[in-house]
Amino acid sequence: MRFRWTLGAALALLAASAIADEDVWTIGPRKLPPPANASPELKAIIGAERTPKAMQGDPPSSMLIWKGLIALQDAKGAERAKEIARKYGVTVREDRIAGVAVFRVDPPVVAPEHKDHIFVHVHGGAWLFNGGRAATVEAALIAAKAGIPVISIDYRRAPDFPYPAAMDDVVAVWTELLTSHKPSQMALGGTSAGGNLALAAMLKLKALGLPLPAALMLGTPAVDMNKTGDSRFLNDGVDHGLAWDGDAAEAVKIYANGHDYADPYLSPIRGDVSGFPPTYLVTGTRDLLLSDTALMHAKLRRAGVPAELNVYEGFAHADYLNYEGTPESDQHFAELKIFLADHLAQ
Amino acid sequence: MRFRWTLGAALALLAASAIADEDVWTIGPRKLPPPANASPELKAIIGAERTPKAMQGDPPSSMLIWKGLIALQDAKGAERAKEIARKYGVTVREDRIAGVAVFRVDPPVVAPEHKDHIFVHVHGGAWLFNGGRAATVEAALIAAKAGIPVISIDYRRAPDFPYPAAMDDVVAVWTELLTSHKPSQMALGGTSAGGNLALAAMLKLKALGLPLPAALMLGTPAVDMNKTGDSRFLNDGVDHGLAWDGDAAEAVKIYANGHDYADPYLSPIRGDVSGFPPTYLVTGTRDLLLSDTALMHAKLRRAGVPAELNVYEGFAHADYLNYEGTPESDQHFAELKIFLADHLAQ
Repeated sequence: MRFRWTLGAALALLAASAIADEDVWTIGPRKLPPPANASPELKAIIGAERTPKAMQGDPPSSMLIWKGLIALQDAKGAERAKEIARKYGVTVREDRIAGVAVFRVDPPVVAPEHKDHIFVHVHGGAWLFNGGRAATVEAALIAAKAGIPVISIDYRRAPDFPYPAAMDDVVAVWTELLTSHKPSQMALGGTSAGGNLALAAMLKLKALGLPLPAALMLGTPAVDMNKTGDSRFLNDGVDHGLAWDGDAAEAVKIYANGHDYADPYLSPIRGDVSGFPPTYLVTGTRDLLLSDTALMHAKLRRAGVPAELNVYEGFAHADYLNYEGTPESDQHFAELKIFLADHLAQ
Repeated sequence: MRFRWTLGAALALLAASAIADEDVWTIGPRKLPPPANASPELKAIIGAERTPKAMQGDPPSSMLIWKGLIALQDAKGAERAKEIARKYGVTVREDRIAGVAVFRVDPPVVAPEHKDHIFVHVHGGAWLFNGGRAATVEAALIAAKAGIPVISIDYRRAPDFPYPAAMDDVVAVWTELLTSHKPSQMALGGTSAGGNLALAAMLKLKALGLPLPAALMLGTPAVDMNKTGDSRFLNDGVDHGLAWDGDAAEAVKIYANGHDYADPYLSPIRGDVSGFPPTYLVTGTRDLLLSDTALMHAKLRRAGVPAELNVYEGFAHADYLNYEGTPESDQHFAELKIFLADHLAQ
């Protein structure tokens, strides 16, 4: 039995496509203490942070300034990636696959169950940032903590290479890897824009009739290029690292480069995810993209895809990377390790 | 490797146990449009609701008024329960098990896989409300939608019978059912206070050395009697049906009746959940108890318990019951049906 329609509901539905002003709720100010039931470590970090700055503001005023900002972020990310690699004894080698720059990221010890496996990693960074060595922060953590060799794709990025260059690079690397590995031996995934690109690549692989990986990891993925999702509003100014208005919305615009945001390759929540492999998803209660993650989880489940959702108390966007080493981050990587062992072919 | 401690973090940790004033963030006002990627049906309902009233306010000023409020809510709930039973062709019979009042709630057709199974249902209602026939709203939906016979426990309630009466009643019914059913043939669960009581009963059964059910369902359970959890703050005034300050906090006080909230039988997030059976959890992005649900999911996972978390976009506390018949509610019951079929012994 379906919901019994009323005239009011039907009218509200008609209005909802445009979102009538009177349907937009105004939510008053509130207090937010440190999360009492988070780990002491995470609670201490959050307590020390004080109220996060509202991240939105005027985005860079010219493409030259964008490129400067990208160079700065890439450099900072590269430093962090080197620190993480040292900390965990991970080796990182530059390579090219199908003409695309990649990093081969190897753990100090490959877990026995993963000796024939690869995790194909798609880095995040709002489609513009975290190229070069910075791409390997998450890759190194996955390699070290799951004991699996990782190939991290240093895909072409906007502004010089807007959509669909990044998606095409992921597809090209995957296609080449299929010549040396069975799809059942490979996982694919990434965080934020990396989750978005992983989803776009999956849809593209389906369209091309190519085999899909045996496991998919979606870390707080952006699934809609429009500003939608309860959490993009509720956690605005709560998420310490990400806000939609300002830089992020502008980055999307630069990446999309005039393409319609309704295209599932840009907004995968509009795609057909049937036939996707088992999927691991992770987000947090302060994550601007909590709704994106939950919506994709529900959509995968509706399509009959085995999918596991994990929501960590107090975590904002990608905090399992930002706060690497906290018990919550450790649990995320432990869950991912179990998930990969469960779904990659032995 | 664990998080590298700094003096600042260590000091903040010390402060966090008391929650220093300066650690409490102030979150500004915000706009919240209807959830664009929710189903049209749910979006229409939410759009028509306008900004929810802040639910908190002065709780009833005397126990006499509390009892009047309880009588009113029970009567309203009974009407709704009868309507739901009619709609789905569910039969409801009063009975007693181990001296405790129960309802035997049977679907029009028992699914073949559930012919020897029982779902033992613990109703919600802030430990005070939804007694009598009102107990059977969720029970009837589970019976109808999963095709499983349900025994819904009309446990003794505060104020006349405060903690631990309700938990003891659940344990007594369970113990009696063990004489006629294998634990592998029974699931246990409920929503809100029902989830809290289901968890408390599980901890008590463990302490008594009694076998546990084969599957546990926790619908947006209260896991901490103190006002903790990001979502109890972030979704205050967002959740259209539940706020913590006011009635809810007072109901907890009446139920706990002077017992320490730190007792795991009151706040199960402090309990030892190792050995719990596979658990299904459900909540939503606007749920005041989103954090409670996510925290219990993470805790179960840390204890090695198979546990599935589902978060629906736009759903406030228990909206799969409030908005029964929406596609999101239908998905919840479909997921629960799959979960029960997967985990109850054939």
